[in-house]
Amino acid sequence: MRTVFWDQKRGVLKMIDQRLLPAEFVINEYTRYQEAARAISEMVVRGAPAIGAAAGFGLALAGFGSKAATVKELTAELRQAAEDLEKARPTAVNLSWALKRILDETVGKYDTVEDLQEAILSSAQRIADEDIEINRRMAAHGAELIEDGDTIIHHCNTGSLAAVDWGTALGVIHTAHEQGKHIHVLVDETRPRLQGARLTAWELDQYGISYDIISDNAAGYFLSTGQAQKVVFGADRAAANGDVANKIGTYMLALAADDNQVPVYAVIPTSTIDLSLASGELIPIEERAPDEVLGIALHGRRAAPEGATARNPAFDITPHRLITGIITENGVVFPPYDQNLPAFVSTP
Amino acid sequence: MRTVFWDQKRGVLKMIDQRLLPAEFVINEYTRYQEAARAISEMVVRGAPAIGAAAGFGLALAGFGSKAATVKELTAELRQAAEDLEKARPTAVNLSWALKRILDETVGKYDTVEDLQEAILSSAQRIADEDIEINRRMAAHGAELIEDGDTIIHHCNTGSLAAVDWGTALGVIHTAHEQGKHIHVLVDETRPRLQGARLTAWELDQYGISYDIISDNAAGYFLSTGQAQKVVFGADRAAANGDVANKIGTYMLALAADDNQVPVYAVIPTSTIDLSLASGELIPIEERAPDEVLGIALHGRRAAPEGATARNPAFDITPHRLITGIITENGVVFPPYDQNLPAFVSTP
Repeated sequence: MRTVFWDQKRGVLKMIDQRLLPAEFVINEYTRYQEAARAISEMVVRGAPAIGAAAGFGLALAGFGSKAATVKELTAELRQAAEDLEKARPTAVNLSWALKRILDETVGKYDTVEDLQEAILSSAQRIADEDIEINRRMAAHGAELIEDGDTIIHHCNTGSLAAVDWGTALGVIHTAHEQGKHIHVLVDETRPRLQGARLTAWELDQYGISYDIISDNAAGYFLSTGQAQKVVFGADRAAANGDVANKIGTYMLALAADDNQVPVYAVIPTSTIDLSLASGELIPIEERAPDEVLGIALHGRRAAPEGATARNPAFDITPHRLITGIITENGVVFPPYDQNLPAFVSTP
Repeated sequence: MRTVFWDQKRGVLKMIDQRLLPAEFVINEYTRYQEAARAISEMVVRGAPAIGAAAGFGLALAGFGSKAATVKELTAELRQAAEDLEKARPTAVNLSWALKRILDETVGKYDTVEDLQEAILSSAQRIADEDIEINRRMAAHGAELIEDGDTIIHHCNTGSLAAVDWGTALGVIHTAHEQGKHIHVLVDETRPRLQGARLTAWELDQYGISYDIISDNAAGYFLSTGQAQKVVFGADRAAANGDVANKIGTYMLALAADDNQVPVYAVIPTSTIDLSLASGELIPIEERAPDEVLGIALHGRRAAPEGATARNPAFDITPHRLITGIITENGVVFPPYDQNLPAFVSTP
């Protein structure tokens, strides 16, 4: 089952509600693009490739939901919807990448409202279908770097749930496991929203891959005591120099790996690479509600005192100097990234 | 009120139950040394200086609870009790330091069981009383390094609750605040047991010091964006070369500070310095129950899937190369620590 998909029969977008996993497996249905935007913002769906696909189908909902009488009217509405959808999450570039690609492929090329509506959906569907194929290619390239017996530290969730299917960094682990390599995953729980403890652990259970959940702050211990041989993660946006924005905590993890000469791989489709930005400092960092930090309880006991305040940046920038290789669907890119990345970015 | 104290009237050890804070403020009473050992192990009391004092009073309980008819018998029982108490937590050296000091001060110096029992208590009481004075001196030395306007990242809890009173790293912050310096604390929540979110936030509320709780993995973001000017923490044991064992996550925090040229201070009484160990690798690291990692819930929803496994090292080693200065009651020690530490360690 895909994380994000179009129900052709009902003409609606469907998504697994990732906020409820692993306790409940619920599939939500979206009929209006505004609802899709809110679902992206509230993290019903998350993971750079998955929210790219969700935004694409969101645009299809905007098309079919329109009362526009002319192609011109519809086009204006679609542009507005794309703007709204793009605002749902600021850091992942896949959102704007998918929306731009769909509009580029369709706007100005159809004579009737119906044809344009259908074309938007086809284009969104193509992005979703391609995502799986791209993930499989990334995973094949990445799995070559994984050795039998490796213990791999993984941050956030980058599996099937973070993409349309298969995933990025977890896709690499999944493919290495299917190749018969014996691997063990140290799953960063990934505060504040615990995508590791919730989603990655749940996926690894399903694939039969051995793992232990760890506190994010324990990764340094395992790295410095020789108990981990690789570090892998995805990203929400990479800059032209190879800096990547990824889930908060990635920077500290990469630092600890680097300090112990453990290889660090960012696994990202080329759609996540934003060559328009020279370096990571230019990537906007979303700061989310303090409640995600404050709402934590251990053994049923809430941690923070009443009235406590919190800061909650959702991403950080990992400088390219800490990244051993960037695994894309077109192969593994090694430093110097500013020189080597452009050739790997496929220009459709 | 002290975190750990002897109730003279009732002849019992009393301790604030830190597992229940901030929701409930409960003081537990201990009449048998075995109960005191279990309370240390279960983290009713935690923090290197506090568990040193608790172990001392635990030994007093062993003395008064003994049915020994002779000083020789009592001495044998005390040695056994000291051994049991020492095992309660393996990493903090203050435990064995306090027990050894009390036995050194008393054994072989008294002719009656009663005199030896009283002497054990007096010696334990002296350690507790001295702890506060030592903390005040550390805080005064450390506060000189804090500048008006500093935002300080603090790990775990090192305040009044981690000592008999006042605290180590949080004592420095408290004193700087009392000196009228405007400071803001970024409180590492400190997974897995959340001593930061629970205890440090609670203490800072009481002192009226401005703070925000952050996920441990967000410290790197604040450091790399110039939003923090100092990093402070305590330690459970320092080796002769200046390596320190402290709460899990300290190493990654120090790495991130170092990567951004932000000063890092370990604030420890000299009783925490173990000159018998050449380097941090020789310090035993406690691994605690997986349940501390797995028992986490966000907004009432348990994160980990049923049957998930976890690893839970409670401490890590921060290499001395990442530490700008070690603040003791005898002054601030700067590198090279292997040369400079011995002179600061007071030999009573």
